[in-house]
Parts: sequence; C-alpha cells; structure tokens
Amino acid sequence: MKVGFIGLGRMGQAMAARLLAAGHDLTLYNRTPGKLQGLLQLGAHTAGSIAAAARFDGLVLTMLADDSALKAVTQGEGGLLATLPVGGIHVAMGTHDLELVRALAAAHADAGQILLSAPVLGRPDTVAAGNCGILAAGDAAALGRCKPLFEAIAARVLTVGSDPGSAAAMKLANNFLLACAIEAIGEAYSLVQKCGVERPAFHELITKGLFACPAYNIYSKIIADEAWDTVGFTATLALKDLGLAMAAGKASGVPLPSATICRDRLLSAIARGDGERDWSVMALEQARASGLG
Amino acid sequence: MKVGFIGLGRMGQAMAARLLAAGHDLTLYNRTPGKLQGLLQLGAHTAGSIAAAARFDGLVLTMLADDSALKAVTQGEGGLLATLPVGGIHVAMGTHDLELVRALAAAHADAGQILLSAPVLGRPDTVAAGNCGILAAGDAAALGRCKPLFEAIAARVLTVGSDPGSAAAMKLANNFLLACAIEAIGEAYSLVQKCGVERPAFHELITKGLFACPAYNIYSKIIADEAWDTVGFTATLALKDLGLAMAAGKASGVPLPSATICRDRLLSAIARGDGERDWSVMALEQARASGLG
Amino acid sequence: MKVGFIGLGRMGQAMAARLLAAGHDLTLYNRTPGKLQGLLQLGAHTAGSIAAAARFDGLVLTMLADDSALKAVTQGEGGLLATLPVGGIHVAMGTHDLELVRALAAAHADAGQILLSAPVLGRPDTVAAGNCGILAAGDAAALGRCKPLFEAIAARVLTVGSDPGSAAAMKLANNFLLACAIEAIGEAYSLVQKCGVERPAFHELITKGLFACPAYNIYSKIIADEAWDTVGFTATLALKDLGLAMAAGKASGVPLPSATICRDRLLSAIARGDGERDWSVMALEQARASGLG
Amino acid sequence: MKVGFIGLGRMGQAMAARLLAAGHDLTLYNRTPGKLQGLLQLGAHTAGSIAAAARFDGLVLTMLADDSALKAVTQGEGGLLATLPVGGIHVAMGTHDLELVRALAAAHADAGQILLSAPVLGRPDTVAAGNCGILAAGDAAALGRCKPLFEAIAARVLTVGSDPGSAAAMKLANNFLLACAIEAIGEAYSLVQKCGVERPAFHELITKGLFACPAYNIYSKIIADEAWDTVGFTATLALKDLGLAMAAGKASGVPLPSATICRDRLLSAIARGDGERDWSVMALEQARASGLG
Repeated sequence: MKVGFIGLGRMGQAMAARLLAAGHDLTLYNRTPGKLQGLLQLGAHTAGSIAAAARFDGLVLTMLADDSALKAVTQGEGGLLATLPVGGIHVAMGTHDLELVRALAAAHADAGQILLSAPVLGRPDTVAAGNCGILAAGDAAALGRCKPLFEAIAARVLTVGSDPGSAAAMKLANNFLLACAIEAIGEAYSLVQKCGVERPAFHELITKGLFACPAYNIYSKIIADEAWDTVGFTATLALKDLGLAMAAGKASGVPLPSATICRDRLLSAIARGDGERDWSVMALEQARASGLG
Repeated sequence: MKVGFIGLGRMGQAMAARLLAAGHDLTLYNRTPGKLQGLLQLGAHTAGSIAAAARFDGLVLTMLADDSALKAVTQGEGGLLATLPVGGIHVAMGTHDLELVRALAAAHADAGQILLSAPVLGRPDTVAAGNCGILAAGDAAALGRCKPLFEAIAARVLTVGSDPGSAAAMKLANNFLLACAIEAIGEAYSLVQKCGVERPAFHELITKGLFACPAYNIYSKIIADEAWDTVGFTATLALKDLGLAMAAGKASGVPLPSATICRDRLLSAIARGDGERDWSVMALEQARASGLG
Repeated sequence: MKVGFIGLGRMGQAMAARLLAAGHDLTLYNRTPGKLQGLLQLGAHTAGSIAAAARFDGLVLTMLADDSALKAVTQGEGGLLATLPVGGIHVAMGTHDLELVRALAAAHADAGQILLSAPVLGRPDTVAAGNCGILAAGDAAALGRCKPLFEAIAARVLTVGSDPGSAAAMKLANNFLLACAIEAIGEAYSLVQKCGVERPAFHELITKGLFACPAYNIYSKIIADEAWDTVGFTATLALKDLGLAMAAGKASGVPLPSATICRDRLLSAIARGDGERDWSVMALEQARASGLG
Repeated sequence: MKVGFIGLGRMGQAMAARLLAAGHDLTLYNRTPGKLQGLLQLGAHTAGSIAAAARFDGLVLTMLADDSALKAVTQGEGGLLATLPVGGIHVAMGTHDLELVRALAAAHADAGQILLSAPVLGRPDTVAAGNCGILAAGDAAALGRCKPLFEAIAARVLTVGSDPGSAAAMKLANNFLLACAIEAIGEAYSLVQKCGVERPAFHELITKGLFACPAYNIYSKIIADEAWDTVGFTATLALKDLGLAMAAGKASGVPLPSATICRDRLLSAIARGDGERDWSVMALEQARASGLG
C-alpha cells in the first residue's frame, strides 16, 4: 500500500521499518530530514512537505512525540487538515490528549476526512522485535483499509470501536495501570527491605504466582537491581503521560487518586534531578521517603 | 510426621486435609469442636486442649483468623508459650501483625522454643487444589524439619531467611500489592467507561500483554462483570490486611501512600454497606465517586 | 488617573465602580457591551476596541475570567501586545496560570511594555465593600504609578517583588490553602458527626480558639448548615483554580498532595452533578464517601 | 473540692498547679514520685496508691500520656475500676482512642461509676497561662460537679453532650484539623518559594486576612523561620494523635484522606531522623520532596 508517514523519531523509525519490510510503499516527512537515511536505504521516499505526504495516496500515519507536534502537523495552511484529500485518512498513532483527539476527529470530519486513533503499546525495541500492540478506533471501513498496515507493525491489533477517543483513552489507561504497578512495587520493596527482607527474595515472590506477567517481572527486576539508568522511558515522559490520563479523567469526571500518587512521586524525583532516568525512579524516591538511600 | 494443628476455619481445614492426605498424623484443636468431623473421618485425632496438641510431638501449626486469636492461643496458663516443650516448634501460618510476630518469636525464644512464620498465599479453594504458596522464615533446622509439611500443603515454598518477621512482612506486602492492583484496575475501568469504551474491550487489553497474570485476569473479570457478590475475600477482611501492612510500615518507618488510597476506598465501601461483599467493591466505590452507578 | 479597563464581569464591574468612585477616569472595553451601562452612568467612557483602551493613556487593567480570555485580549493584531504604546503598562488582575504570566511578562518586555501582576483576593461583594486585598508584583516604578489605583480598589495591598510570577504564585497558593481548609473541615465534620457529635458543637469548637479566622468561620458555618446552594464560588471554578496551583507546582517541581485530595473531591462532586453549587460541596462529597447523606 | 489527680507529667503538673491555686484540695498519684515536689510545696498531698487517690473523695482526674497508661491506671486489682467507690467519678483528660474511651465508659458504668471525658486543648505553657480550653462530655450531674475544677484549669469549657466519646472525638478532630493546616502551609511555602517568592512575604499574606488565627500565625512563622527545633509537639507524638484520629475514622466508617497525607509525611520525617523535632518538620519533609533543602 502507498502510505505517507510523518514523525520519524525512534518509535516512528521502528514502525516505518516494519512497514517497509512488509512491502509497503512509504513517503516520509520529518521536520529534521537527517533522521531518514536508514529508511531511505530500505526503499522509502521522502516528501518535501506535509502536503506531499498527505497526497501520496490520501493515507497518512503520524507518530508524534506530543500534542504540540500533532497540532503543528495538522493545523495551519500546510497542515493535514488543509491538505489531506476529501475521503483521506489520518491515522494518529502517538499518545495524545483525549480532548485533542476528539477535537481533531471533529475537524477532520468537517473537512470530509477521517481520523483514526491507533496508539501503539510498546517501545522502539518492542516494535522492532515485532511484539508491540495497537489499539485502533474509528470508522470501520477506514480501519479495514488500514488493517494490513497495523498487522505489519504489531503482533496484536485490538479494535476498540468507532470513536477515536476510545483508543486514546485505553492507551492512557494502560500507561496509568503500569505507573500504578511500578509505584506499588516500589512501596512494597521499601517495606520489605526495612523489615529485613533481601530484595532477591521479594523479587522471586513477585515474579511467581499472582503477578507473573511482563509488567511486574520487568519493573521488579529493575527496582531490585536499582538499575535506574537503564532507561526505557524517562520520568519526565512518564509525568507527561500521567498528566494526559489525569486530564482525560478531568474531562470525563473521573478522579484517579492512584494517578495522583504516581504524579507526585514523579514530580519529587524530577525535582531531585532524576528526570532523565528511567521512570522506575519512582521506587528510588519512595525509598528516600522511607529514610533509605 | 506427628503434628498438632490449631485453628480449623476454612483455611485450616483445607490445609489439614492436605496433610492427612500426605500421610501425616494430626491432632487437632479448635475452640468449636463441631468443625472437625470431616477431618476426623480422614484419620485425624482431636486434642482436648492446646497443651495436648502442643505435646503431641512438640510441633504445632496454627492457622488463626487474626491477632487476637493468636494471642489467645499463645498466652496465659494453657497457652502454647506455657505448654510447648523446650525445643518445640510453633509454626504460625496465618496473616499477622509484624510486631506481634516479632514479639512472639522473642517470647518463644525466651521459653526455649522456636517460632517459624509461614503464611500461606492463597484461599481455601487454592489450598484444596494444591496451588497455594508458602513463605517460610525462621530457624534453619526447624524449617528443615517442617519442609515435608509445607510441601504437602503448598505447590511453592519460598524460604525467606532466619527472621520470622521477614515472612510476615512479605505476606503483608503481597496482599498490599494485590490491593493496589485492584484499586488501579477499578480506577482505569471508571476512566475508560466514562470515555465511551465497552468494558469487555478493556478487559481484553488488560489480560493480554503486560498484565497477563492471575491477579489482573481475575480481578479485571470480576470488575468487568460487576460480580461483587462472588466473594473471595471480603472488604472487611481486606481492610484488616491493609491495616496490618500500614502498621508494618509505621513500625519500620515506611509511608505507603498507595495503601492509604486502598484503605480509604474500602472504608467508604464498608460505610455504604458493602463490607461483606468481595473486596473488588473498591471498583464499585470508585465508580460511585465518578458519578457512575 | 486615566485608565483603560478590560474585562467587566462581576469582579471587573465591582473594581471599576470603586475606581470611578475614587475619581479616576475610566475607558472600558468588554466583548459584550451591554454589561457596561451601570458604569457609564457613574461616568466611565467606552472604548470601541482593545487598542482604544490601551492607548487611552498607556495604562490598562485587565480582569479576565481565565487564561484563554487573557490570551485573546493580549495576542493577535488588535491585542494589547500589538497596541499598547512603548512604556505602557498592563496590569493583569485575574487569577492566571503561572507560566502564562511569565510568558506574557517576557512578551510585554520584548515589546517595550511592562506587565504587572496584581491578582485580587476577594469576591465581588468583598470588593464592593472595600474589603478585598491585592497582591502586586513587577517593575517598581510601574507599581508606584499604579498605587493609587490599587488603593482605590483594595483595603490591603501587598507588594511582593519585581517578578510578576511571584504575585500569581501567591494568589494560587492562597486559594490552595483555602481549598485545603475546606477539605479538612469537611472531613472533620464527617468524623465527629459519625461519632455522635452535634454539628453546632463542633462549629463552636472550630470558631473559637486556634481557628478563629474568616476562612474557618465562614466555611464551618456553611458546612454545619449544609448551605451548599449559597454559592460564593462554584465547584467548577474551584477545580480550575486548583488546576492552576497544581500546574504551578508541576512547572516548579513541587508536589502538592493536599491539592490532589481537593481536586479529586471536586471532580467527584462535579461528576455527581454538584458543579454549580458552592465549592464547599467538597464536604458533602466527603459525607457521601462516609456513608452519610 | 477534694480531688484525686493521677498522671503528673508536664501537662498534669500545670493543671494541678492551677487547681491548687484555685484552692482545691489535691491528692496526687504518679508512678514516679519525684515529679511531685513542686506541687507538694503548693499544698498538695500524695497518695501511696491509685486506690488512695480514688478514695480521697471519689473524684479522680487522670492526665495520662497514652492509652496504655490509661489502661494501666484503670485495669487490674488496684486500678480505678476496682477501687473507685460506687457513684465515683473518673475524669479522663488526656487524648485517647475513641473506642477505648467508650469501652472504659461502659466498664465504669458496669461498676456503678461514672466516666467523664474532658480532654484539654492546649500545651503546658498554655495551661499555665490560663489560656487552654476543655471539651467536656458525660453525665450531666457529674459534669456539673466538676465545673469548678474545669473552670479553674481552663479559659473555655465547651460541654459537648452525654456521650464521653463525643469529647474524645472532637479532641481528635481538632488535632487533625491542625495537622492538615500545617501540612497545607508547608506545601504552600514550597510552592511559592520555588516560584521565587520570599518567605516573609508569604507569611504576611497568610497572617493577614482569611487565615488570621493562632493556628496559621504560629505555624506559618515556625515554617518561615525553619525553626524545627523549637519543639512544641514532637513529630512522633503527632503521628500518635493522627493514628488515633484515623482509628476513630475506621471505627466509625469515615475515610480521612487529608489525615493520611499528614501521616505519610510524618512517617517520612521520622524515618529521616526528625522524630523528636517539632511536628512542623512536615514542612521540611515537603521541602525535601520538592528538591529544596
């Protein structure tokens, strides 16, 4: 399939590489062209503008780091809303504010276009390894057209419904759940450690039985090893994601007290200079608040 | 092996049945003798007093519902501290206050006896099915002597160290982790539901990928189905366990903010009359606080 | 003095009336001209545009309901940044986001203009009665020039320093303190009430002794009387203000756990339909969470 | 009047001195007799036992540091329950657990005796200066008999009702409110400080206007001056009082989220070694969590 692809950071590159490997025909647009060399060698073309990517075949994927990048790419004279053909599809695959996704869906609809929301569950290495998931929501026919693309990128595609906001909300809820798990694991480690338990013994307890799943295996290990500098996802980015979950809660009238615990923990960690370490520093900050470390 | 067994509620009965099935020779003591019929048919004897159970072979397991029952069984003229022979072993297998376990360990040591802490991870049905775990801590030789008993009861035995408090602390931390997971799942369901997501779609997301483990599978299902009356563990008992975790945190200087969220949630649920429903009513109470239900 | 005044909602009208009563010469601008009749009868003029107000004498007060109104008034072709003369002064007197105030101060400075931040402590009726306070920060000479205006409006003027952000932060901190007091009073009432204390007895305790100040007197009375519909400040507006405090905390690296308690309480109250009642419904929502009411 | 007085720590001594100064006839009992010299010089007698104090005239005040001291004084062979004459009055003036007060009231009633609860609001220096308050609850006739004693000790006596638990609950709620105020003030100082505000400016804002009352004046000053070592009330004792408030909440089905914030803050402060400093170290701990100090 002919696809425009905008936003080629680490995630975008991993996704584009999988699409190319599956034989799709990609035209890439990024604000900083230098990042594209690897993909060009895999057969991708470059677009000189958002419009060129949008008009390649009226189907554009975006994988943008934040809401302001999404606004920059969609709004204004040369943006997607102005340049995507009528009937064209914009698949937003980043993690974005719920209200923004809904407003963008309405704006695309006003312009005779379609917005799909299809956030990715995973990290660049998970994507590269073919293990990520995709939550997809929006117009059914458009979802059908994009199915081969999603399957080229991800191991699991979960179709959520016709409202693009649904997929955005589920992505935020998923990241929120993960934050809560890390926070709880960190609190538990502080507790057992100050009660005289060796960390490996507690790690063994966590990873066998009730909590034997990737989330607990991975973060219990990082915390037991105090491997705060094996950065998978920074504290600063995690704070942004929690902010999006809380904003979605505010917009829909849902208090999320566990999110506020995580948020305050991250804020403290960042205030002490840990913003660029792995977000598991939540556990380090908890340890400090327990008089450890 | 010859074993005294004190405390034959639902958990105790399931454990005793497994010991009998493995060929051990049990003498039972319970305050209310009527409960013992089933086990007597499996070959158990009855003891007319705590002392008789304690002196059967100087090895007694207790599976008591709370701290006051443990105090009642150990203290006073006819209690275990007064009646267990020198060199005798008391294996406390219930979920108890950390400070109480430590004080009891010291008291047994003063009397020339040994306290092992060996709390059980699981419920009566898990025990009966042979799927429960045991966290064991205390004197190494005594642990060695009890090993065949633990293996008769549980599928997994995790030996934690020489301080009985360690096993008690890990048990509390385990239950705390589970409470936090239920709370987070409940918050997440309120969020996605008010954002228009169908509950089964979110259940599918939770149970595949990062959180594919019994804790999340089981409680996400209960919450998605609103099956608050399939009682595995009541809200009132859960509040007791969280209180023990927070007390251990207080004693060791560890704030547990996620525990306080769960505690307040349970308190609200109980205040509204849900004390005897499953502790997953935490999610129902969150739903109410979100204007749902 | 000759003064432009933009933003004539209930607060703005009360402030403008006091300025007129003190003999100042006002040119008013509001998006909806109908609101100005009362002030015109007191001798005010009207400006047909923001520019006209800005150029009246290069000194403009704004009293705007929220950040988007402040942006609308300052940005764009006809906005204050484009139309205020070099050396002109913009006194922002509403409650605004800290980062926005700082960005606006920088933008005014770039344009050769001066931003003062001078938020008002009080409500329309307090202003009318001459009992409100003003927190003023910014360029010292400009503050000096505005002193007669501040003194015409307020009973107390507290000059905070040269950074306009300081006054904005103090205003947010003040409202945050008030929210925390209301929340704590509400929790305390639920506690004593369920312990069998009559509300008037607790009101007497609160208002005599340690807490004998307007904040506690006023809100303890509202809560004791359950007078949620005597609206001084709506739950919805309170949520906005707490959001600004938390955003300031986020921007400066300060977790505010007490703010998150209040925020979640307000969110619940609003989710149940109490958004337009007085923000003391925080206490009503606490009562519900305690199984009362 | 003839009065037995048990518990002569710093508070008890200050109270006894006021009773003696008002001409009452006191018989004192304390576990450590050495503390009584000052009072004996003011005319007090000593009792050799609890029973002797109880039988002096069947009216005994107790001012005990904690629940275990209250239990020790009331229970057992020589305790108040066994030795106070029928019709005798025990006035418990310390800060105690709600459930304990209620159980003790029932036990005294069973013995034909009367328990009044009359906790004191204030510190030793406040008592000595004649500025403290008393919350009194219990049998009306007994309250009437004790009125001259209460008025000799305190400037304000607030009679709460016939249930001794009411006065105990109000005392806990009062201390809880104070903890919440300190926590909120501490959070606010961290916020404004990191926003560039000088502490004295914020102190001025707090102490004028809405919060002009002793609680805010005193603690804002301590926090602005970072005078953590001017100990009025230690962090460790504060944690005990918050625990009593939360226990009362648990017993009556009232979640107190603001209390849990304060509790976790105190736990952290204590874990870092600040247990014997003034409880305003809550603000120091907040500052640390904000990357300050």
